[in-house]
Amino acid sequence: MSAGVIRTDPATERPVRLAEIQREIRELITDLRPDVLAIERVFFQHNVRTAMAVAMVSGIVMAEASAAGCDVVEYSPNEIKQAVAGWGAADKLQVGQMVQTLLGLAEPLRPPDTADAVAIALCHLARQRVGASGGSVR
Amino acid sequence: MSAGVIRTDPATERPVRLAEIQREIRELITDLRPDVLAIERVFFQHNVRTAMAVAMVSGIVMAEASAAGCDVVEYSPNEIKQAVAGWGAADKLQVGQMVQTLLGLAEPLRPPDTADAVAIALCHLARQRVGASGGSVR
Repeated sequence: MSAGVIRTDPATERPVRLAEIQREIRELITDLRPDVLAIERVFFQHNVRTAMAVAMVSGIVMAEASAAGCDVVEYSPNEIKQAVAGWGAADKLQVGQMVQTLLGLAEPLRPPDTADAVAIALCHLARQRVGASGGSVR
Repeated sequence: MSAGVIRTDPATERPVRLAEIQREIRELITDLRPDVLAIERVFFQHNVRTAMAVAMVSGIVMAEASAAGCDVVEYSPNEIKQAVAGWGAADKLQVGQMVQTLLGLAEPLRPPDTADAVAIALCHLARQRVGASGGSVR
């Protein structure tokens, strides 16, 4: 693992790669003991093979988090972009720039996948604030 | 679990259901200690939501099996139908009838998903025999 991204060797067989990701996610959850895991909801878009692979990993991550007693919350790509960049059609670069601004960083997060992950967390925090204020006028 | 099929409550949240499936699969693998786990390759077909849900479970099953040191082999739906029913376009009923015949059962397996699972195992056994005979004339 480097810079918050779990990487596996594309030359390795899929089940072995999935088991590696499972192990790393489990270690992270054990180390960090999060109350909530926020994850991007998997949508089928252009590439079926990619969507299926993402769904497999998504299933593993949700199962591990839930098994560890962690709440799991899913957000759509549009919800995440809306929350972070202000509009649902923002591109990856804009999301990266907004994450950099919101976190007050001198440089954008690298790789961009890291910024995407932070964007999901920021989306969850924003939603929590809205939820917490509820219908009250405070 | 009943009749070889893991069931979860559709009213339960997805991450919790996935964690349940993960736990049951892990227990099965621990109990049965299989050398090989044969699984149907996930294809996108008609229903995107169903395909995504199947991919999530498929990812969990492959990760658990691989983590337990079990070989994982994927077969396409056509390969499975071809191996069991003799042609790749066989329907679910025909697969069920062939599984019943091949296993010498008085009744078809119920639920039909059980027959599908047995069909995948029979497909793997058939492929193994072909592979084992190789180029020899025995």
